[in-house]
Amino acid sequence: MLRQTNLSLVLRHLRDHPAQSRADIAEATGLHRATVSNLVAELLDRRLVRETGTEHAGAIGRPRRPVTLHGAHVGALGLEINVDYISAHGSDLSGRVLVERRIAFDAMAGGPDLSLRQLGRVALEAVEAMKTAGATPAGLSVAVPGLVDVANGVVTLAPNLGWHDLPLAARLSAALGPWRVPVTVDNDANLAALAEHTSGVAAGTSHLVYLTGEVGVGGGIVLDGKLLRGADGFSGEIGHLPVDPGGPRCGCGRHGCLETKVGLAALMKAAHPETSLPASDPEERAIEIARGLTAGDSRMAEAVAQVGKWLGLGGSILANLFNPRVIVVGGYFATLAEWLLPPAQTELERLVVARSASQCRFVASDLGFGAAARGAASVVVNRLIDHPTMIPDPIPRLAPH
Amino acid sequence: MLRQTNLSLVLRHLRDHPAQSRADIAEATGLHRATVSNLVAELLDRRLVRETGTEHAGAIGRPRRPVTLHGAHVGALGLEINVDYISAHGSDLSGRVLVERRIAFDAMAGGPDLSLRQLGRVALEAVEAMKTAGATPAGLSVAVPGLVDVANGVVTLAPNLGWHDLPLAARLSAALGPWRVPVTVDNDANLAALAEHTSGVAAGTSHLVYLTGEVGVGGGIVLDGKLLRGADGFSGEIGHLPVDPGGPRCGCGRHGCLETKVGLAALMKAAHPETSLPASDPEERAIEIARGLTAGDSRMAEAVAQVGKWLGLGGSILANLFNPRVIVVGGYFATLAEWLLPPAQTELERLVVARSASQCRFVASDLGFGAAARGAASVVVNRLIDHPTMIPDPIPRLAPH
Repeated sequence: MLRQTNLSLVLRHLRDHPAQSRADIAEATGLHRATVSNLVAELLDRRLVRETGTEHAGAIGRPRRPVTLHGAHVGALGLEINVDYISAHGSDLSGRVLVERRIAFDAMAGGPDLSLRQLGRVALEAVEAMKTAGATPAGLSVAVPGLVDVANGVVTLAPNLGWHDLPLAARLSAALGPWRVPVTVDNDANLAALAEHTSGVAAGTSHLVYLTGEVGVGGGIVLDGKLLRGADGFSGEIGHLPVDPGGPRCGCGRHGCLETKVGLAALMKAAHPETSLPASDPEERAIEIARGLTAGDSRMAEAVAQVGKWLGLGGSILANLFNPRVIVVGGYFATLAEWLLPPAQTELERLVVARSASQCRFVASDLGFGAAARGAASVVVNRLIDHPTMIPDPIPRLAPH
Repeated sequence: MLRQTNLSLVLRHLRDHPAQSRADIAEATGLHRATVSNLVAELLDRRLVRETGTEHAGAIGRPRRPVTLHGAHVGALGLEINVDYISAHGSDLSGRVLVERRIAFDAMAGGPDLSLRQLGRVALEAVEAMKTAGATPAGLSVAVPGLVDVANGVVTLAPNLGWHDLPLAARLSAALGPWRVPVTVDNDANLAALAEHTSGVAAGTSHLVYLTGEVGVGGGIVLDGKLLRGADGFSGEIGHLPVDPGGPRCGCGRHGCLETKVGLAALMKAAHPETSLPASDPEERAIEIARGLTAGDSRMAEAVAQVGKWLGLGGSILANLFNPRVIVVGGYFATLAEWLLPPAQTELERLVVARSASQCRFVASDLGFGAAARGAASVVVNRLIDHPTMIPDPIPRLAPH
């Protein structure tokens, strides 16, 4: 028990700090040097860390080479199901990408049963690809656009998929047949926020908010390097913040939610009220808008500036409450960043109370639409690092008698 | 180093769980039983824990009595300076109250110099009282109504005291003369939130928001049992959330801040626009309003219902973003709770997205105006528990040669 805790302590430190000497690890973790040497020996033996570069320990003693996270034989699989696609992201323990896939899929038309079968198929194909790359998948996490009961792996409500109270973890486990691994489920924006913290433009920033603009608006909050979940896992509901009580009616039935000001549907309506929003992919739609802005569509330019201002107001709420360093924007916000972010930043600075908090910066994500699946894979990595007993060994050991 | 970490681990567990057997502690901390016995022996020797009750370990072995946090010889002092008073709260390591004082003081009229002298005087008197009670004060924390740079102990801006960029920790340390202890400074609403978590109506709730209504509005956020600080310590600025962009001008220069809807000044103006707010104590003023409501002041009743609705909207922002179990209200919100909270609760439930998050409850604080000083003392207790080397021994030991 204590040894597992200590192994986890060392692995966690190496996840966040590459190429550490044993002395570095001892200092950072508070463990004795002898204990660290012993733990590192086990981790080297289990190929979860490897020695890198050279570091000389002066005249006395043999050179001690720094160690870094390895685990090339350990696979972590993340899936995302969204309105019109399923994507997969598989990595090894060190975060090296082993497989990335995205297939078109109409989840609403397919219904939960077909969606589950399709998710299972994508998962098993990814498992095969990871095995070919030499890694045994040791966990799976799924990103879903909706409210998720994380503790039970149940999708409480995902309006854009037409799902409610779906025990996704249990049903997907069953669909995976003989491949038995722990399955967890989480909100897509939460997982994208985690991906931004792990490997995006603001990687390593310990206080960040992720805000994604699609037809609606989603968000995830990372505080002190950890995802904010709240008492029931329902924190970070940024899209339905009431920002204009006298404002237009939202899809949720309330009035003046942030989504009615900065969602893609709201932008389209403001710029071209005469045309109804076609059911095209938000990504394509955003690229079209960017083309229009470049070509000098002045009504669109005005609408985008207005959305930028409301985005700044929404950002100021987040800055006032969470005091993050960075607000990373994804989805169509990222595509239109050069037009949206300047007015958003100005408005945020005007509305934030504390001088330091106003140093909070909007930045555009560069992870694209794969962020949630990538975040799902990193959740699996973190779970394995927290519970090293769950990590498979590189070479099968003899079963005890 | 490792031993200190483990002592701290055991003390922390006992702070949160009274009357634990050594086996309970071993299980909860992951330490070996022998290590725990050894650590508990040291803690008993240093009188930081004591044995309570009786627990028989079956037929074999001598009875093992559960242990509980003690440290009656260790003092933790919290101070609060506010617009018109200074208060002090001293406890021992187990949270037992040793001294509680409140004196009237006009901080704005006195200016920083006189305020510092007066704070120093109150602190030294409290120290004497704690010594008389057998405790050696081992740390001091000060609550201030304003923005605080916690890391440096500097009050960045406290408009109601007329302070800015005041190095309070350094100057108060100097004013305390021969009594040398670590001094820290924090925002009053943050510390009150911590007091609510430690010993208020929602004590032990790990996700709670504290919201206090005075002339303005302050707040503090506890997540997973810890105060949310954000990247620079400026999180939880709830009073200036923009809730009505077209609304009235706020004291801060912006428009439609929550404070312009639910602050005491806003309430008075809504109920009796013809009379300007007299400079009376918010507590007295709230009692007067309650008297008016009981006597049937219908304009006031309408204004309070309106404030309740806005309080619910503000609460829904907090519930959507933080998903707390409870929003504890203090200040005049607590005094008027029976009129304010029913409409606030209705509005919150209407505006919150997730079903579970809408189970979030408004409750009135019962700590009264002493909450911030009490929270300040608990910060000192927590710091001592995190750094057991800072805890004075009950009997002076011989100095090492």
